[in-house]
Amino acid sequence: MDKKLIYLDNNATTKVDERVLEVMLPYFKNEYANPSSMYEFAKNPGHALKEARGKLKDFFNAANEKEIIFTSCGSESANMAIRGVLNMNKNKKHIITTKVEHPCVLNLYQTLEKQGYSVDYIGVNSNGELDLAQLDDAINDDTALVSVMYANNETGVIYPIQKISEIIKNKNPQTKFFVDAVQVAGKIPIDVQELGVDLLGVSGHKFHAPKGVGALYCNSKTVITPLIIGGHQERGKRAGTENVPYIVGLGKAAELAQDYLKYEATEVKRLRDKLEAGILKNIYNARLNTGAAIRVPNTTNIGFEYIEGELILLHLSDLGICASSGSACTSGSLEPSHVLRAMNVPFTAIHGSIRFSLSKFTTEDEIDYVNSVLPDIIEKIRNISPYQDELAKLKKLKNNY
Amino acid sequence: MDKKLIYLDNNATTKVDERVLEVMLPYFKNEYANPSSMYEFAKNPGHALKEARGKLKDFFNAANEKEIIFTSCGSESANMAIRGVLNMNKNKKHIITTKVEHPCVLNLYQTLEKQGYSVDYIGVNSNGELDLAQLDDAINDDTALVSVMYANNETGVIYPIQKISEIIKNKNPQTKFFVDAVQVAGKIPIDVQELGVDLLGVSGHKFHAPKGVGALYCNSKTVITPLIIGGHQERGKRAGTENVPYIVGLGKAAELAQDYLKYEATEVKRLRDKLEAGILKNIYNARLNTGAAIRVPNTTNIGFEYIEGELILLHLSDLGICASSGSACTSGSLEPSHVLRAMNVPFTAIHGSIRFSLSKFTTEDEIDYVNSVLPDIIEKIRNISPYQDELAKLKKLKNNY
Repeated sequence: MDKKLIYLDNNATTKVDERVLEVMLPYFKNEYANPSSMYEFAKNPGHALKEARGKLKDFFNAANEKEIIFTSCGSESANMAIRGVLNMNKNKKHIITTKVEHPCVLNLYQTLEKQGYSVDYIGVNSNGELDLAQLDDAINDDTALVSVMYANNETGVIYPIQKISEIIKNKNPQTKFFVDAVQVAGKIPIDVQELGVDLLGVSGHKFHAPKGVGALYCNSKTVITPLIIGGHQERGKRAGTENVPYIVGLGKAAELAQDYLKYEATEVKRLRDKLEAGILKNIYNARLNTGAAIRVPNTTNIGFEYIEGELILLHLSDLGICASSGSACTSGSLEPSHVLRAMNVPFTAIHGSIRFSLSKFTTEDEIDYVNSVLPDIIEKIRNISPYQDELAKLKKLKNNY
Repeated sequence: MDKKLIYLDNNATTKVDERVLEVMLPYFKNEYANPSSMYEFAKNPGHALKEARGKLKDFFNAANEKEIIFTSCGSESANMAIRGVLNMNKNKKHIITTKVEHPCVLNLYQTLEKQGYSVDYIGVNSNGELDLAQLDDAINDDTALVSVMYANNETGVIYPIQKISEIIKNKNPQTKFFVDAVQVAGKIPIDVQELGVDLLGVSGHKFHAPKGVGALYCNSKTVITPLIIGGHQERGKRAGTENVPYIVGLGKAAELAQDYLKYEATEVKRLRDKLEAGILKNIYNARLNTGAAIRVPNTTNIGFEYIEGELILLHLSDLGICASSGSACTSGSLEPSHVLRAMNVPFTAIHGSIRFSLSKFTTEDEIDYVNSVLPDIIEKIRNISPYQDELAKLKKLKNNY
């Protein structure tokens, strides 16, 4: 890239931290043994796996290293958790999840519905907060699994996992609870014991490890079937020669993420808030879609009324600024986000909603630059909007949400 | 590693080629966009994926790039192919495979047997060659799938895939044919069209790409369900953000493997033959377990009578020489290899059978060194064998197989 790059799409993927790459390199170069081999040469990769497992245990505050299973991505973690639990409880056919899960997880539930499962999708209010009463009502004796994301990828809204866990266990202690924590890893602390979850999945590339590695926490009381059946790796829970470089990288990324939690909560949040305040101040009828909901520190989702998000993104991209509407997995679809629809974001704003997601690498200069160029971009697009009358009225009111 | 390393366990895993690492690095550093994103910054990773897919298409001589699915390993490729075919033909409950498949694949079949599938396991002769008449007899109207490895990981024996494909399609054109080609990729040419296979899987780390990436060829006439359900990636066949660095690396490794096929067939084979001839000449009662069977050029499996393979490997490891008995996935088990048992290798030799597997990085000096030290190692171990009388008789005969 010759031109400037301002990467504000860290909920889609992140840059690999140089320190992560550095610890991976020896396993691409000299330490290439298969960790299952018996000779001396395989000892270092074997130890490296063990050390990485310990780091993930600490990252999750799991009780035991045996509760950590390395996977190839967040989708694998979710498939393994969800289908692994259901396969062990074949007589139970009821599942509860939310309307705002990641589209990948929703696709899996739609497949399960075709296979005879009954799935309840819990809704959210206009700020994107879950309806816990509806969740409570939905749990019954047949409920095999509840699966709720820890934070939403589009809005950053954090769900009260500990409270949800209590609701579930009070209603049906046999029901297993899976948490898709892909969007919180590295942003807020994760403590599986305090949260009271049975299974929890993360994806490395959302916290500065590479794409292609993830982890699943599965507590010792929860038995699941493997998704990839075969060798003895991961205690028989996940076959395939271990991806030693990436697992080592994931361990390092988890360690670094832990170290940066305070920075996320302060500095990343400060920059996010500065971006948000700048937009809401300088652009009329920009709408913070999450209202006062509690969010991860790096995410903001803002609706610009009467214009198309894709056009905003195109103009931003021309200036080297990366942001997104919806998840990367649904990019290219012109359907408005299922998350914003579930929140009943008004039709005037839903098409023009943009997610900015920052990281520890985001600088103040970058945020200042975005704040300096965005008003003109929005103005330019609004000038060609077919809703000129409505926009003229709004401009007079200078009414912001 | 300060001391010398002589790595003759390339069927367990291989060293990443420096040229593979080199093409991967930009995708760890600057080109980190999620290829599903819409902005300019995501274009290069998107193109890189497309280019890698083209390289795999060429490597397999597939008819179309759409027939290539990237996976996280050979086990995932096999699980996806086998279960993907069965899920699409749920009324058919008969499968045929071989007694000598990789233990990971055999584990999967044992699981399927518990789920109501009937599995026939085709045997081999004393050279490790498949019983094609038994295979022919086993195919019936209910046969959903035949799955045969292209070459055996322990013996290197190549199975006549084209002929097997003809047998299958003559008997039941609806039967799908999956080939586990993990052990031939980079060793002999793969031509899926000439072979007439429906599905074929490979694993990158067996041909100098990293551990944690694989590919599945699935021809356009064969519909399979995804194993990891979720996003639109890999045309909806494999969810999860694409592992861009490794996929790019796999493409490069496939390209290099193609370039090195002649070198494998000549120079690697020459060194393997030199090692084999040296052992058979200098060590009495060393037994080439595969007789005259046709093998991949890099592998030899030799039985040393009346001693334990694990002890040989330990002595070799002390000198920095890596070899193995059985597959890495079953290392640590003291059970004799299921492959050698299927071949009826005599009990006197089965426990002392060692696999040496070379690569393009193996040098003549390394082979000469192994040939110079191995006779003493075997002699030393035989001196403490409880079978002194038998050994004395054999020594007099100087009888080799």
